[in-house]
Amino acid sequence: MATPHTSAFGWIGAQRRAREAAGLVRTLRPRPADSPVLDLASNDYLGLARHPEVVEGAAEAARRWGGGATGSRLVTGSTELHAQLEWELAEFCGFEAALVFSSGYAANLAAVTALAPHGSLIVSDAGNHASLIDGCRLARGATQVAPHADPEAVRKALGTHEGPAVVVTDSVFSVDGDRAPVGELAQVAREFGAGLIIDDAHGLGVVGPGGRGVPYAAGLAGTADTVVSVTLSKSLGSQGGAVLGPAHVIDHLVNAARTFIFDTGLAPAACGSALAALRLLRREPERAARARDVATSLHQLLLKDGLLAVRPDAAVVSVRAPSPDAAVRWAADCRDAGLSVGCFRPPSVPDGIARLRLTARADLTETEVAGAVRVISRTAPNGASTAGS
Amino acid sequence: MATPHTSAFGWIGAQRRAREAAGLVRTLRPRPADSPVLDLASNDYLGLARHPEVVEGAAEAARRWGGGATGSRLVTGSTELHAQLEWELAEFCGFEAALVFSSGYAANLAAVTALAPHGSLIVSDAGNHASLIDGCRLARGATQVAPHADPEAVRKALGTHEGPAVVVTDSVFSVDGDRAPVGELAQVAREFGAGLIIDDAHGLGVVGPGGRGVPYAAGLAGTADTVVSVTLSKSLGSQGGAVLGPAHVIDHLVNAARTFIFDTGLAPAACGSALAALRLLRREPERAARARDVATSLHQLLLKDGLLAVRPDAAVVSVRAPSPDAAVRWAADCRDAGLSVGCFRPPSVPDGIARLRLTARADLTETEVAGAVRVISRTAPNGASTAGS
Repeated sequence: MATPHTSAFGWIGAQRRAREAAGLVRTLRPRPADSPVLDLASNDYLGLARHPEVVEGAAEAARRWGGGATGSRLVTGSTELHAQLEWELAEFCGFEAALVFSSGYAANLAAVTALAPHGSLIVSDAGNHASLIDGCRLARGATQVAPHADPEAVRKALGTHEGPAVVVTDSVFSVDGDRAPVGELAQVAREFGAGLIIDDAHGLGVVGPGGRGVPYAAGLAGTADTVVSVTLSKSLGSQGGAVLGPAHVIDHLVNAARTFIFDTGLAPAACGSALAALRLLRREPERAARARDVATSLHQLLLKDGLLAVRPDAAVVSVRAPSPDAAVRWAADCRDAGLSVGCFRPPSVPDGIARLRLTARADLTETEVAGAVRVISRTAPNGASTAGS
Repeated sequence: MATPHTSAFGWIGAQRRAREAAGLVRTLRPRPADSPVLDLASNDYLGLARHPEVVEGAAEAARRWGGGATGSRLVTGSTELHAQLEWELAEFCGFEAALVFSSGYAANLAAVTALAPHGSLIVSDAGNHASLIDGCRLARGATQVAPHADPEAVRKALGTHEGPAVVVTDSVFSVDGDRAPVGELAQVAREFGAGLIIDDAHGLGVVGPGGRGVPYAAGLAGTADTVVSVTLSKSLGSQGGAVLGPAHVIDHLVNAARTFIFDTGLAPAACGSALAALRLLRREPERAARARDVATSLHQLLLKDGLLAVRPDAAVVSVRAPSPDAAVRWAADCRDAGLSVGCFRPPSVPDGIARLRLTARADLTETEVAGAVRVISRTAPNGASTAGS
């Protein structure tokens, strides 16, 4: 029989104290609409979230279609606006079909669970995003975690299994900004007749010609065995996610993916702003290259100042910190100096290493980038520099 | 070694054929912005999704805050608008604190996983929504499924366990529209020092004084051991979900819930429309009673015509169909006659019984309700009526 507590949730107190002792308490800090702080923390890679066309896309869609989708996509929640967005997304990224979800998280849960049935094997990169990991845990198939970015390990894992299999990887890893060896992974998967699921959340809009993403750049777009998930909430400045792939696979998701069937459709305003951003990107493809250039500048200036910055494969630049505590103080000191940077620490980092995470927005000027690096260097803690300062 | 297929996803073909043979193929039917069809299928219970104030709430928020939240709620994704919505939602429903998510699905995954740690027991109603079931599957605690709406069975299950436990239930079940015995469940949970998680997705805006929801109506709002999830996408005509509860529990979710930490914040437009709808409901509390009255009318007229309608506890009225095929044809015949109704069939129904699902919107007129019932009766298949017509 359960022991009655003073409160059913009394056990939370001990977890809270452990988190406090480890310096890992997280607190929400709501931001104002207009802030003088320079943003190098968001995932708004192309700086489109507040672009007038993107904002008007949201407002116009709400006016025409209402505040919400009113139901599941299979009941009343599919509008012609959803269909249009799916059509244009698929076309842009080079896939036969697309399916839009209320978040990238939901899209990843859908792709992994629907494509890894009972008796199948999932080979999942050790650095994958939480949503892919949760997809593996929910799927009926068995999961083998492969070491980070290691096609040989994936080959070994696939060799242990008979029957359907999928290889699951981020294209650009959120924490360090490094790119997965998707070409080699595709080749290994093909050898074993396995599918490849790529989460291109941090690639779309930044990598590849005009920002068409990592799979497109690697020649994998539109192939029979590749399925890609993307978010509408990063480069496209909106909210939501999508899965792209062959039409019969997308059709299977409509019929089998619980986070599609049992979720309300994405709000029309989010469809409208994502569609506006996509059209803007198609019209101004140089925005993608600009985001990559800003990332390269940022990286080079940080290295010149002796900081442990990881060479960026997209728009994320990661800088190692000596400890979680030091990372938190470093980010706070940056904020006090008018600069907002991401601070990633356990349990949000797969390797336990705390770091600052900087995002190179396409709309940052060279002056802003240089100013940001000056602040980061000036506030760096002991042990953050390669020179051991 | 895996056998190479022609395509990695070739196995989908067999599932497709099985679905076709069983009459269970689902197809998206995108709707136009302005349709002459009468909607009794959506979850827009108060008819607010297209209310001018709700639409303007979305448009104004997009203009002020941008098309997206730009990052995780813990990085750049928390705006003062999110905080305001959380404050007003908590206050309206009678709880100390609230936390907003990008969907009700994400909110349920968060609540269950964060509140059922390793070593704990979850007792979950057999009729619970897919998102609660997936929450149980993702949680580190063990799950026991209790028969539908059966407090005695919950008591027995809790009696088998030592340590933290939670009882998890929908307040109003989506399929049949029946209400859970939340008062008795709370009492049983309290006996064992267990928490109670109530998904009030279909209660908020409809049940209780001014639509404050089932937990409020049952005197459970604001108690130490009750946690409630709601959606912003049904009565509030927007998108998203929220978890309500004691401040220290909500704070725990901020630190522990993966679908909070690793998801982009809800889009400002969705916050704006949900907030506008909430304020409208507070100003015009009679909307909630009106939705219940429409449901009662609908139910009585269907019974009078000899149909197997379930007595509604909120705004959902369920009508039994003799088979999945018959339900699909019935819904199609209604649509051809200008009436949109929901059609629920396996695997979306826990008991395998196919049915039409009608929603009683607060803004339906008596004439519309009577007309809808005429269409439903006229198109009813053999075996749908109590008279065995």
